[in-house]
Parts: sequence; structure tokens; C-alpha cells
Amino acid sequence: MSLTLKVHFTSTTYLNFRSKHSALTSYNTQIRPKPICHFNPLTSTSFKPKKMHAPVQSSSTSVIKSSLIEPDGGVLVHLVLPESERGVKTVEAESMPKVRLTKIDVEWVHVISEGWASPLKGFMREDEYLQSLHFKTLRMKDGSTVNMPLPIVLAIDDETKEGIGSSSDVGLVGPDGDSIAILRSIQIYKHNKEERIARTWGTTAPGLPYVEEVITPAGNWLIGGDLEVLKPIKYNDGLDHYRLSPKQLRKEFDRRKADAVFAFQLRNPVHNGHALLMNDTRRRLLEMGFKNPILLLHPLGGFTKADDVPLDVRMEQHSKVLEDGVLDPDTTIVAIFPSPMHYAGPTEVQWHAKARINAGANFYIVGRDPAGMGHPTEKRDLYDPEHGKKVLSMAPGLEKLNILPFRVAAYDTVAKKMAFFDPSRAKDFLFISGTKMRTYARTGENPPDGFMCPGGWEVLVKYYKSLQAEEATQQPAVLPS
Amino acid sequence: MSLTLKVHFTSTTYLNFRSKHSALTSYNTQIRPKPICHFNPLTSTSFKPKKMHAPVQSSSTSVIKSSLIEPDGGVLVHLVLPESERGVKTVEAESMPKVRLTKIDVEWVHVISEGWASPLKGFMREDEYLQSLHFKTLRMKDGSTVNMPLPIVLAIDDETKEGIGSSSDVGLVGPDGDSIAILRSIQIYKHNKEERIARTWGTTAPGLPYVEEVITPAGNWLIGGDLEVLKPIKYNDGLDHYRLSPKQLRKEFDRRKADAVFAFQLRNPVHNGHALLMNDTRRRLLEMGFKNPILLLHPLGGFTKADDVPLDVRMEQHSKVLEDGVLDPDTTIVAIFPSPMHYAGPTEVQWHAKARINAGANFYIVGRDPAGMGHPTEKRDLYDPEHGKKVLSMAPGLEKLNILPFRVAAYDTVAKKMAFFDPSRAKDFLFISGTKMRTYARTGENPPDGFMCPGGWEVLVKYYKSLQAEEATQQPAVLPS
Repeated sequence: MSLTLKVHFTSTTYLNFRSKHSALTSYNTQIRPKPICHFNPLTSTSFKPKKMHAPVQSSSTSVIKSSLIEPDGGVLVHLVLPESERGVKTVEAESMPKVRLTKIDVEWVHVISEGWASPLKGFMREDEYLQSLHFKTLRMKDGSTVNMPLPIVLAIDDETKEGIGSSSDVGLVGPDGDSIAILRSIQIYKHNKEERIARTWGTTAPGLPYVEEVITPAGNWLIGGDLEVLKPIKYNDGLDHYRLSPKQLRKEFDRRKADAVFAFQLRNPVHNGHALLMNDTRRRLLEMGFKNPILLLHPLGGFTKADDVPLDVRMEQHSKVLEDGVLDPDTTIVAIFPSPMHYAGPTEVQWHAKARINAGANFYIVGRDPAGMGHPTEKRDLYDPEHGKKVLSMAPGLEKLNILPFRVAAYDTVAKKMAFFDPSRAKDFLFISGTKMRTYARTGENPPDGFMCPGGWEVLVKYYKSLQAEEATQQPAVLPS
Repeated sequence: MSLTLKVHFTSTTYLNFRSKHSALTSYNTQIRPKPICHFNPLTSTSFKPKKMHAPVQSSSTSVIKSSLIEPDGGVLVHLVLPESERGVKTVEAESMPKVRLTKIDVEWVHVISEGWASPLKGFMREDEYLQSLHFKTLRMKDGSTVNMPLPIVLAIDDETKEGIGSSSDVGLVGPDGDSIAILRSIQIYKHNKEERIARTWGTTAPGLPYVEEVITPAGNWLIGGDLEVLKPIKYNDGLDHYRLSPKQLRKEFDRRKADAVFAFQLRNPVHNGHALLMNDTRRRLLEMGFKNPILLLHPLGGFTKADDVPLDVRMEQHSKVLEDGVLDPDTTIVAIFPSPMHYAGPTEVQWHAKARINAGANFYIVGRDPAGMGHPTEKRDLYDPEHGKKVLSMAPGLEKLNILPFRVAAYDTVAKKMAFFDPSRAKDFLFISGTKMRTYARTGENPPDGFMCPGGWEVLVKYYKSLQAEEATQQPAVLPS
């Protein structure tokens, strides 16, 4: 899968100042015509900035609003207890029936506790689960709708359920037995795995990474409730400083006086095609009148499948890309998005976008086959590669986010650089898939000049060589007869 | 599955006069307190009438509004051409590339043409299909949402697609080759059967009746477009007079001066448990101040699975139930709902409810496991029997409909009648499943007194005896050695 794509801005690309108060407020800005609003969001030419604060037209000393986009539900959820309460609550947690978490459960505690899933305040109870599973939304008390495409749930087995008995609260303990959180006012309900998988992935074929890793081995019950997290989740892997919470990110955007934030979700190394896209997006936002658009380069840091490049290697690679000047450090924030990966295509891309709303991004870039993978048992993509961006543009609850669809780019063998794919001279373009990139790195062959900055490429070569060395040591010393 | 259940009206059961104009209009009625609005619609005690016209409190000569509830999208879709255009359009249709319809495709043409699926104006194009599949809703141009839980699509095979070429319109012909409709401004897109099945049924297990009958044999493409139907769809089976369109039903409700219409969807014979529920609902509506609540007894008339009782037998049975006075003909309308059955549980019950909004019903009764069946490969219900009513109460786009959940009833062996199940004396109750009913009818044994009116029961006995006779003639004359 080649990943560099083109933003489609058209002649109808103007700002639409539909803020909550647009009927009442006169902005001190040049009023531009409203964009033609295509209902069908599928056409590649539809781009319509939505519900945002007007870019500041006067001096840079103007007051900039602290939030470019409201978190879902209006308030950013934050469930980590203040230090003053931790001692008492930890003692309390230890007196409760226990639920042992897996590593991935802890990632979800992290995600929920920092408000990435706002307005969700804990693992889903059945009413939230059913709404998420069937409608990909939650209805708020005021009748409004927020997007919530993935069930964020905690599974327990029969024995744990029995141990909980009639207790209304439970203590959550990590894989090593340390107290992590309290789950209050719990509800236990059936975990129909088949239905959960079918409605989330649109298939029940064996071999879905998250299903095999998380759902199949899980218990037959789900437990929902309100989370109280005893202390911030840390991984102590040398990367915690990259794990900025939505609150920290919003503060950083304010500190940098961002008047637009565009988020780029990725789980792969950054090549020059990605960079072309991100730089092009920034240029266009500047052309539109924004003075200080900030890029949130936001690699996913939770569970990924075995053949994806691990997080530490990716972070090193991303650093090199900034060091090499491919992306501008002054207008880029690199941070880790702590969610596990579902590989659930059009359903998951909504989660990726929704979480970035909560982190304060008001533009979201989406390319070909987001969160997709090959079908686990058939020789085809699991999802139609165009469905992700289409479904994202339709998704209820994401109306306030500006979706930036982009087209595939590839290596232009004439210009000798990554460029937007031109179908009129298709033969000049070389698609460099992840598999191909891996083959280059493994064999020590260099990819074409201009595919990736040398510093970034070196990181990958080093990683793949270490992998080969590791594989070699895992070969049995004597072949079985 | 026993089908008679209890309506839960509680002390908070009051009318909520949230009409479109409620902020502006002063009703000439006694204003009642608003119901306590449970966000969680799952509690069996939640019943809250919504968005309706106030029941008339003065004399019976008051003007009654012609519609109790607006059709989805505001306008009832009607796609049958006026007689004056039929000749010309039929000639035109015959000049177009053809798509041959199956019997069930024709049922969908019927459904769409009369506006049961309003605001849908034809078979779904891809943007409608994806919204339906992922979100069970369609977003309207004004930003509002209507419920649309089942993909209403037309499949074609490679050969038909090739035959269509670049034509923008096609003629739809019935199974016998007669011109039925034109599909305009078509769009052809991929039919990913696995994803459609998984997201609609929440399983891909083999043996789902609609899947086996309709989807598995269908082509790999879907064709969407705007329908123009050449003449009303008729079945000439002696039951067409029961097939009232939403327009006809709305007119009939007006003629009868209904101030509330409560719809009862069924695909089974009516027993006294059903009757108890329907009569009880009427009584409660009267208590609430409605003067003339009308029951829409609305059996499904399209495709059903092989072991369901056929439509003609059910219609005869329903007639007897009215003749025998179990239901009151003066306050009951019996009509056929022309949709095919999906057996898709919580997803399909939304369709059943949504279509009745379009037919003018503002109350919808829902029981245990609506549109459910046994899991085709496992020994369990396919759906959690409580999920149907929960999901229905949550469903986006159905907020204006009053959902009436009801509890299971069974044969009370002490009172010798169908009664609401009382768990405190569970042993007194006998659950008479469809299978059990069939066994009674087949063996000539009578069910307990008071289970079903004698006239209705006779119809079933006759049917099952004919089935036995038929089965006997299908036995091979000589058993294979």
C-alpha cells in the first residue's frame, strides 16, 4: 500500500464561518463566499472547512481562542485522580474485587483516562456498547450526537464475574498485579463476540489481528462502569515524553498560537510522499488565510500487528525526518496517540478522527484505505480502499471536523521524487509498498533517490537488519530430520 | 417463542406535547407534566409519548389533524407514474437496457414506490448504501437524520452490468419479462456480500434465510438510481385489497378520525396473548386521554422463511380473530405490509418501525426478540432477545415515534387464559412456542382453552393438515434401499 496522497482543494475552497454564533457575531475578517456544499462527500473535489474560528487577519498579537474545536460532549474528560486522593483511593481499590487487565486493556484505560474518547467516562455499559455497535454514535442528554465507532469495552471471564458477586465497584489491576484504577457503578453484560466482530469489522474471517490478540482469548462478559485512574499511565520505554494528552496538546497548540491544526495519523515510517502531502496541506492552509497552521504528526502507539514497524523504531525514524528538514520542526508537533490498532478500516478511521477532535485538531487528513489491511483469508483488500474516506465524510458526529481527503502519490521516475500520481503517465510512477520497502531494507538495497530522507532510511535498515539477525538466532541449530 | 407481552405504562406516563410548533402554539388541552426522560431506554418502565398532536379534549366534532406523524423526510414518496404517462414511459422502458428482477426485487420496488422507505426514491446508490450499512441512517440535505437500517439495494451480475454499458437509465422487468419500472441516473458499485451480511446481521454464519434466498445467489454489483414505476404493483392472489399503501392508510386513519395509531407488526398467527396486549394498549391510550386510538394490525406480506405460516393462511386467521370479536373491527385496521423479511433482529425491527412512521402510525409495539430467530449454526437465539427493544429505543431517526415495549405473556393454567407472565408463580404459566403450536395443529390436539379463538385455530388446523397431506404425497413411493 502506497501512502502518499493528494489533498483536493478546489475553486470552491473557501472558509465557511459557521461558528455557533455566526448568526450573531460579526467577524473582523474578510468574508468569503460559502463553499458549495456537496451532500455527497465522496467526490474527490469536496473540501469544505467547517465550524472553526476565523483565522486572525490582524496582527499576531491578537488574542487567539484557546480551542480551535470543542471536545466531544463539550468537556474534555480527565479521569486521573488528583495526587491528594491517590493514597486513600489506592487502599480502597485494594479492598475491592479485582479485575486483571491485559496490556491492551491498560492502553484503553490510558485512552479513556485522558479524554481521547470524550465524552466516554469509563468502559462502556450496555447502552453505550449497543449504540456504538449499531450506530457508531452516542446520543447525549441534550439530544446531540457524538461519534463513537469502536466498542471500548473490558471483557472478563466467568470466574472473575463470580468473584465480583454483587459488588458495585471493582479494582482494576495491571498485568503485574499493580493497582491501576477503580471501576464504579459497574454493569456486567454478555460479550457476544461473533456479533461484536461482525458489526465492527464487517467480516468474521479468522486472522484479524485485534480479534486474535484481544477478543478471541477474552471472557464471555463485558464489564462497564465509571473509571477513576489512580495515577497517569506510563510505559517507561523512553517514549513517555512523546505521550502528550489531549489537554497537553491543546495547551501546546495555544502556546504556539496555532490558528489551524491538521492531524496526520500513521502507523508506518514517514516517506517523502507523506511529507509532500503534509507540506502541501500547510501551504494550502496558508493560502486560505490561516497564519499559523500546525501539523500534529501523530503516530499510533498502542497494539499493532506483528509485521508493522515497532513504535520505538518509528519514533526514531520520525525524529530523523524532522532533523533532516523534511518536515519543519517549528510548525510540527510529534506526539504518540496511545490507542491500540483495530485494523477495522472505515469503522476505525472514525475513531482515529474523533480522538483527534478531542486533542484539538480541526483538520484531519485521510488517504487511501485508512486502517485497512489485506483480507485475512482472501486475496483482496479487506475494505474497498475508497470506503474509508467516504464513510469518514458521512459519519454522524464528525460534522465539525474538516476532513482532508487525499489521492495516492508514488515515486515519479522522471522527476526522481515522490509526486502526486498522474494517471496520464502512469508508467512513469513506481509504487513502493510496505513489503517492497522491507525488501529494500533487508537486502541492503537503497530505494530510489528521494523516496525517503537518508537519516530516516538508515533507521529502517538498522531495524530490518536486527530483525534478520534475530531471525537467524531463532533458527533451530539442527534442522529436524 | 411466546409473543404476548405487557405494555409498561408507569406513573410517569404523560403526554409530551413537543410538536414542531410547541413553542408557539397554545393547545386547547389540559397540559400535563412532561414525562421523566430516561436516557437509558432499556429500563422496562420507560414509556414516553413523543411529538404528537394533542388528543382532542373538546367535542368529537373538533378538527383532527390529517397526519399524526410526519413521514420521514417530510414528504411521503410516491413513485408510481400517473396513468397518462404510462404508455409513453413503457415504450421508453422497453428501449432501454434491461435488468431482470426476482420476485423479492419486485417486493422492494413495491415498498419503495409507495413510500414505506421514504425519503428513499429508488434503490440505494453507494452513498446511501454506505450510510445505511454503517450508521443505519441517512443524512438529509437540511442536516437532519432519518432512520434507514437495511440496505435496500438491487444486485446485478457481470453480464447484466456489461449489457448496461454506459447507459444512464435502465428498464426493470419482472420475473415474467413484463416491464415494471425505470431506474434513472443509475450508479453501479461493488456488492461486497460478506461485509453487507456481517454489518446487517451481525453474523456471517450459513443458513440465514434472506441471505440464502437473496444475497448468496445475487450478482457482484449493486445498481442504484431513481425509480419510476409504470403501474401499481399487484399480486393477484386475492389479497391485494389488504395491501393498503401508506397514503391509503393515512387517509383511512383520517376518515376514522384517529387521534392515535398504534402499529403491531407480526408474521405469525394472532393468539389471545397478542390480543390481550393490543386491547390493553388501547385501554391505556384511552386512559391517557386519547378519544379514538386505532390499531394497525399489520402482518408482513413479503418473503418469509419456509417454516413460517404463509400469508394467505395468516390473513384468513386474522379475519377470524376479528370475526370472533377478539379484536374490535371498529377500531382495528388489518392491512398487509409488503416488505420481505430479513430476520435481522435489532437491525430489522428499526425498519419495521420506520416504515410504520411513513404509514402514519405514531405508536409502535415491540416485544421480545423482534425479527429474531434461532442462530443458524449454534444452539441459541441469534440475537439477545432484549436487544431488539433496546436498540429500537436508541435508534437515531426514530425519536418522533412512541415505542411501546412489552413483556412476555404466556398461558396461565390457573386462570385458563393468556396473561402477562408473573415470575412469582412461574410454574402456573405455559409457554406455547410456534413449534408447539404446530405440533398441536398437526396432531389434531387442541391447545389449552383460551389460547386462541376457535375460528382462528381452525384455520391453522386446516393449514397444517394440508401440509401433512402434501408431505405425504411427496414421500417416495418406494423407499430407497
